[in-house]
Amino acid sequence: MFDTQQALQSIEKEIQNIALGTHPTELYEPIRYIMDLGGKRIRPILVLIGNYLFTDDWQKNTKPALAVEIFHNFTLLHDDIMDNAPIRRGKPTVHEKWNSNIALLSGDVMLVKAYQQLDFVEEKYFHTILRKFHQCAIEVCEGQQLDMNFEKVEKISQGEYINMIRLKTAVLLGFSLEFGAVIGGADPENAQQLYDFGVNIGIGFQLKDDLLDVYSDQAKFGKQVGGDIIANKKTFLLIKALEKATGETQDQLQSWLTKVDFDKEEKVKAIIEIYNSLNIKQETESKMNEYFYKAFQSLDSIPIKKEKKEALISFTNDLINREK
Amino acid sequence: MFDTQQALQSIEKEIQNIALGTHPTELYEPIRYIMDLGGKRIRPILVLIGNYLFTDDWQKNTKPALAVEIFHNFTLLHDDIMDNAPIRRGKPTVHEKWNSNIALLSGDVMLVKAYQQLDFVEEKYFHTILRKFHQCAIEVCEGQQLDMNFEKVEKISQGEYINMIRLKTAVLLGFSLEFGAVIGGADPENAQQLYDFGVNIGIGFQLKDDLLDVYSDQAKFGKQVGGDIIANKKTFLLIKALEKATGETQDQLQSWLTKVDFDKEEKVKAIIEIYNSLNIKQETESKMNEYFYKAFQSLDSIPIKKEKKEALISFTNDLINREK
Repeated sequence: MFDTQQALQSIEKEIQNIALGTHPTELYEPIRYIMDLGGKRIRPILVLIGNYLFTDDWQKNTKPALAVEIFHNFTLLHDDIMDNAPIRRGKPTVHEKWNSNIALLSGDVMLVKAYQQLDFVEEKYFHTILRKFHQCAIEVCEGQQLDMNFEKVEKISQGEYINMIRLKTAVLLGFSLEFGAVIGGADPENAQQLYDFGVNIGIGFQLKDDLLDVYSDQAKFGKQVGGDIIANKKTFLLIKALEKATGETQDQLQSWLTKVDFDKEEKVKAIIEIYNSLNIKQETESKMNEYFYKAFQSLDSIPIKKEKKEALISFTNDLINREK
Repeated sequence: MFDTQQALQSIEKEIQNIALGTHPTELYEPIRYIMDLGGKRIRPILVLIGNYLFTDDWQKNTKPALAVEIFHNFTLLHDDIMDNAPIRRGKPTVHEKWNSNIALLSGDVMLVKAYQQLDFVEEKYFHTILRKFHQCAIEVCEGQQLDMNFEKVEKISQGEYINMIRLKTAVLLGFSLEFGAVIGGADPENAQQLYDFGVNIGIGFQLKDDLLDVYSDQAKFGKQVGGDIIANKKTFLLIKALEKATGETQDQLQSWLTKVDFDKEEKVKAIIEIYNSLNIKQETESKMNEYFYKAFQSLDSIPIKKEKKEALISFTNDLINREK
């Protein structure tokens, strides 16, 4: 049986066990700080679920599973510098609490630490995992660069956007599942199918995020509804609206996007009205469901027992149905 | 026979062969740019010499040797961001030519690429090398953090300084030689002795750098003599002078260090006079020679033919005797 709570507990316990140096403290305190900020630990849980699909021995793989959590937190640390983000999980970001040089350098150490954590992978699977990890790591960096590029570009196509979110966020989910599968003895074809499941689910999750920013219940959402709208963030919704808007709607949309002084609430309301008039919610939901559907098709084709798959399906559905 | 020129040529050729992605170009052009800035390629040459000491087949190891060159350039890229350095090898630094986000992110990719290059290490040596590489990479980051810390500290001891330069620059030279030795089939003891040689030589090189900044022939030096003095850089010379100066000399030294407005030439001249009065040149040379002596003692105890050792001795002596 796979038990998400039990998995989470052993992940949290192992996070406390990660061997960090002590000197200089400026290098190691930020690593401890960001690892202790919490989060849902989705990626190592996906490693363990992926593992559970192919072996009952999943409990022994918490240590290698942490590699993806360390890597993920490394990307958050460096992305926060690049995005000049002041807050992460309700706390000051590392570059705010210390400074950006310390954030840069402790991030570098975290990338090495992620690699070091892979040393816990069993010898016979080691090279396969290591090579896939290199590729995944590079793709995540490519995604971040594309995301930064997109801020300066006027027009992005739907395909370019999907490719960016695939690289920036989805491939690490795919790799996490594949990682678990490979070290669970899955054959390459099944490991690939599970990777495809993860990537497609990941793309769907990001589209869900884009939707939640606009169409969520403020009481449940936790952060400000419409944050992406206020910042002109090129989400799937905006890209789609720019693609579909014509005539007066197009003029109104452009006018809001170029306005420098505006009332935030008024802008959010106006853009939502434009989205509604263009059917953007339905279009985005339909695209999101397309990816969820593709994902579950990949999962269907993996020849493992339905009871095993239930663990992954249930974990995924919780994430699909989240309201924040 | 080991042929440095031949080694250098194959290193340069392999650098051109490193597989880099193409998209997004912002991520890969900076990597190509910094790798093509040149430099003496000391670290991969040390891998190949370390290898040659234990096998005649050193020519086949250029690919794995590049891992240390990619890693070294990764550290330069990120250090230049942290130090806000405008120029590297006479050309604009990556963060100047592009921007600091691009420099940060392409540096991250380079660290992954360094790891990826280690995949060329023969299976039987792979884990040994990988684990030593993790450690070396972390130590280099620790050294950089200590170096940054020292800028803000008034007093550093000689021991703290030596430890910082050991981590920041010497361990990578030690690792490079050890790397070559291990993949050449050296036993662990001899590999360790070669590592010790590299680390001690590396510390000596840095002390030589500190000396050259002050006591070199401007015509041969290439950069401004006294640059460290103007910037109050805590070199071994300054640390030693602060330790030895008393009475009026101490007051003069402190006065120059705290002056905000000063004539550069005048400051350099005055500080050199203080150094001379305190015998700092001889003290530094003596410390440097202590490390060179230790290094050659380690080398002596490795049971390999004198002809083989000659390659390493001659390469090292060229670096010891350099005047810039």
